[in-house]
Amino acid sequence: MKWSKFWLIVLAASLTGALAFAQALSPEQVEQGKQIYFQRCAGCHGVLRKGATGKNLEPDKLKKEGLSAEAIKAIITNGMGGMPAWGKLGILKPDEIDLMAKFLLSPVPEPPKWTFADVKKSWKVHIPVSQRPTKPETSRNWRNFFGIVLRDMGQVAIVDGDTKELVKILPTGYATHILRSSADGRYFYAIGRDGRAEAIDLWSKEPTLVAEAKVCLDARSIDTSKFKGYEGKYAVVGCYWPSNFVVLDGQTLEPLKMVSTQGYVQSKGEFLREDRVASIVSSHFSPEWILNIKEGGQTWLVNYSQMNLKGQPLTVKMIDTDRFLHDGGWALDKRYFLVAANAVKKIAVIDAKTGEFVASVPVGNKPHPGRGATWNHPKYGPVWATGHIKDNKIAVIGTDPQGHPQYAWKVVKMIETISPGNLFIKTHPNSPWLIADFTVAPTPKANATLCAWRKDDLDKPPVCWEVPGARKLKARMVHIEFNKGGSEFWVSAWANKDTPSFIAVYDAITLQEKTRITGDWVRTPTGKFNVYNTANDIY
Amino acid sequence: MKWSKFWLIVLAASLTGALAFAQALSPEQVEQGKQIYFQRCAGCHGVLRKGATGKNLEPDKLKKEGLSAEAIKAIITNGMGGMPAWGKLGILKPDEIDLMAKFLLSPVPEPPKWTFADVKKSWKVHIPVSQRPTKPETSRNWRNFFGIVLRDMGQVAIVDGDTKELVKILPTGYATHILRSSADGRYFYAIGRDGRAEAIDLWSKEPTLVAEAKVCLDARSIDTSKFKGYEGKYAVVGCYWPSNFVVLDGQTLEPLKMVSTQGYVQSKGEFLREDRVASIVSSHFSPEWILNIKEGGQTWLVNYSQMNLKGQPLTVKMIDTDRFLHDGGWALDKRYFLVAANAVKKIAVIDAKTGEFVASVPVGNKPHPGRGATWNHPKYGPVWATGHIKDNKIAVIGTDPQGHPQYAWKVVKMIETISPGNLFIKTHPNSPWLIADFTVAPTPKANATLCAWRKDDLDKPPVCWEVPGARKLKARMVHIEFNKGGSEFWVSAWANKDTPSFIAVYDAITLQEKTRITGDWVRTPTGKFNVYNTANDIY
Repeated sequence: MKWSKFWLIVLAASLTGALAFAQALSPEQVEQGKQIYFQRCAGCHGVLRKGATGKNLEPDKLKKEGLSAEAIKAIITNGMGGMPAWGKLGILKPDEIDLMAKFLLSPVPEPPKWTFADVKKSWKVHIPVSQRPTKPETSRNWRNFFGIVLRDMGQVAIVDGDTKELVKILPTGYATHILRSSADGRYFYAIGRDGRAEAIDLWSKEPTLVAEAKVCLDARSIDTSKFKGYEGKYAVVGCYWPSNFVVLDGQTLEPLKMVSTQGYVQSKGEFLREDRVASIVSSHFSPEWILNIKEGGQTWLVNYSQMNLKGQPLTVKMIDTDRFLHDGGWALDKRYFLVAANAVKKIAVIDAKTGEFVASVPVGNKPHPGRGATWNHPKYGPVWATGHIKDNKIAVIGTDPQGHPQYAWKVVKMIETISPGNLFIKTHPNSPWLIADFTVAPTPKANATLCAWRKDDLDKPPVCWEVPGARKLKARMVHIEFNKGGSEFWVSAWANKDTPSFIAVYDAITLQEKTRITGDWVRTPTGKFNVYNTANDIY
Repeated sequence: MKWSKFWLIVLAASLTGALAFAQALSPEQVEQGKQIYFQRCAGCHGVLRKGATGKNLEPDKLKKEGLSAEAIKAIITNGMGGMPAWGKLGILKPDEIDLMAKFLLSPVPEPPKWTFADVKKSWKVHIPVSQRPTKPETSRNWRNFFGIVLRDMGQVAIVDGDTKELVKILPTGYATHILRSSADGRYFYAIGRDGRAEAIDLWSKEPTLVAEAKVCLDARSIDTSKFKGYEGKYAVVGCYWPSNFVVLDGQTLEPLKMVSTQGYVQSKGEFLREDRVASIVSSHFSPEWILNIKEGGQTWLVNYSQMNLKGQPLTVKMIDTDRFLHDGGWALDKRYFLVAANAVKKIAVIDAKTGEFVASVPVGNKPHPGRGATWNHPKYGPVWATGHIKDNKIAVIGTDPQGHPQYAWKVVKMIETISPGNLFIKTHPNSPWLIADFTVAPTPKANATLCAWRKDDLDKPPVCWEVPGARKLKARMVHIEFNKGGSEFWVSAWANKDTPSFIAVYDAITLQEKTRITGDWVRTPTGKFNVYNTANDIY
């Protein structure tokens, strides 16, 4: 090649580069885009944009589908499928939507790192174990406390379940996702979507944040060791990004061990850097946690019983279950764990006693059980149920292969509901009702409505009611939680951050509203966790 | 910014880019560099150049150390530390060394991918199981066959251990690293450095390649299920790149499951994309393989007993042992597995019966045991020994905590040898001698020398002899292997590919040379594996 030709190529290349540069986002815009993407999009679409609950959003894919910036803006504004109408709901402003359309058509930025050293550096013990009470110092009935996530406030409120009084508001990480309880109920463990884990001591005079650690950059799950002899010894955080799980000391949250979950799709497909821990439960049958690895479609049984030995052995039983695992819970006997694989419309069943994958049950479109609801049905025996985001159905599954083999791992009843868009269902052994919300239903009326079915007669039409005042607040009723005795259940009215809303308290037998928890602090209440029911997996 | 200024910046940027481009390697040169790097460098320095047995070679690190292209060329030419003098030995030509110096100062290219689909596509069954013999069809004493790696020929020779006749030459992958035997000895499993796994049936009229699969792009280890009831059921390949292991059907080599080994350094350090499976052994105490994860410093006990259940569960016990794990073998009772962590000068000990990490024994500089050598010493009881690459020492370790607790997991004897640069030691229950080579010693005389110590009297000076004719061939004596009865041992003369060399056969008691295996086919012989001893872990 002659030099003149060479320079011509160089010049052409730099012109192309300059044009690309002229169209690109500024570093500040990229930062803002990354921030919005993390808060609103990554959960469903993945930080690498390869899709999970939501579709693949890689720029090449979007371009191949012919999606222009204008089309993307329209979708973000108006929502699509299970995706909220970010614009219409006023969550994203027009200039933010404009930015996001450009951001999505730009190359995927390399996600940041978060190493064990970073976790360790972030670890803080606010109250050393030696300075904590040795018996409850509160005169309240702390076992009936409710931990209430005030989602967009970055707070958790502790409310007395007996008196309905606000006991304490604690600052937590960004959009706390869930609370879990130590086996004795003393500690609440909170995990923020920003990966911040916190331990809250309920035995102090007032609930106190005793330890914290930023375990990852994006997380959804936390649990604690519940097997006899290991109660409260360890905690575990399941991370979205980086895709791993971290074992912590249960008392101090000291980071102990970090295990990557990156791997191959069901051990036979492509390699995934983003292979997220969707949910965790703690076994009562063995010193194990059950972790659900979303993109890889694997369930990992993690045995923590040898962590105290030389080399901190941790044993991971890797089972190929179903893809895009999400959330799940225990059947009535706490032996069988059922987890939704929402993209393949299935419920995978793990036997915690034998460690076996026993069944994969076809259900409706996008099952979303939370932890599900479980009870003893007069005909079908012990059953477990899940609602669906995209179907107006509740699937009731037989879970008793010993006593009721003919119904085991079959949908014994597909209950028709008033609308798709259910997020949570719940019951309690002392309540005759199965309660459901319609939080992501397409109509404001459904969003404000709750329904209850008789657990012993699923053919009976449900009792449904619109919660008075919810629509006026533009609130969605979300997440049902019973009190310790199961005599009442609470449901959050999830409105905008700027609007104080309420938590409605219902009689668990008559379904009559007993009272409302209100106050200026009641903003964006979502998940609620009763100490006794959470510690003992009652749902 | 004004447009004129903007264009000035663009022009400056393109000039800088052009200069960088002018200095850079052509795509063909990059390809050649990658090829040479893979064949000669990646094993010790890692494909991402982050270092392992060898030093970190990332371009930024090299530049920070002030290493010019000239300095790098000098090191490649003359060798350094444990690194061969690639130039002086005539393995790399001056223009190749020149290229490699530039290649090492250029950015690390992204290593290629190799997915489960690729493995599956590469899988070939040459002889279906139904068409294989049901009993040995050879009249030879196949249990005394030797599989001999002809390293640079990409071949494995099967030699009759009774008659010393060449039985068959089989084409195998690039630089076959090891052979392993099925529990019954019928099949040889070969693994090439290029990740090609092969099964050779010794029951056919003549040894036959019955199945193959290219499991990875770079590999070192293979083994088979040896536990009672699982004999020959599964095979496993440990990969360097991509860093994972793959479970195969033991009879057909059908790929069944792929598990990533990428993870955190000893579960508490940085994340490693290159976290290689260094070696594998098959437990006799449980349905487990023991895998050594080099960079991460973990030993994984992989239980294959539930692979036939729904979801193909595979249980991995992850133990933090020592960093830069390499090779290892069983103690006399086959209960304790000892593995070298060569960068930290330690031998890690795993109890295959309890699955515990029992000890970490400090030894000399860069221990390189191969599988080691093990015998019952009159004073110390059962011992296991390793030589060293960088020390003129053989470390003898007590391995009997029950019978000889005072010696267990201690170096009971540090034997002084004639030179550093030992690669392999070996013995047999029927031989009174412990034999050592000096393959990577700094002098041609040591390379051609073998030494033998009396196992029952380690203080006695060794018998050492220079192998006649080896130096003339510029050969290095390497790898000792005994025959089935332990009456003789064979050592390879590893010369240049262009030069036929020999395998020397010695009487295992008198140490007299009995015969030499020669022929035009005897080129670059290295590892040798006797069927009976390999199947039964006798060393």
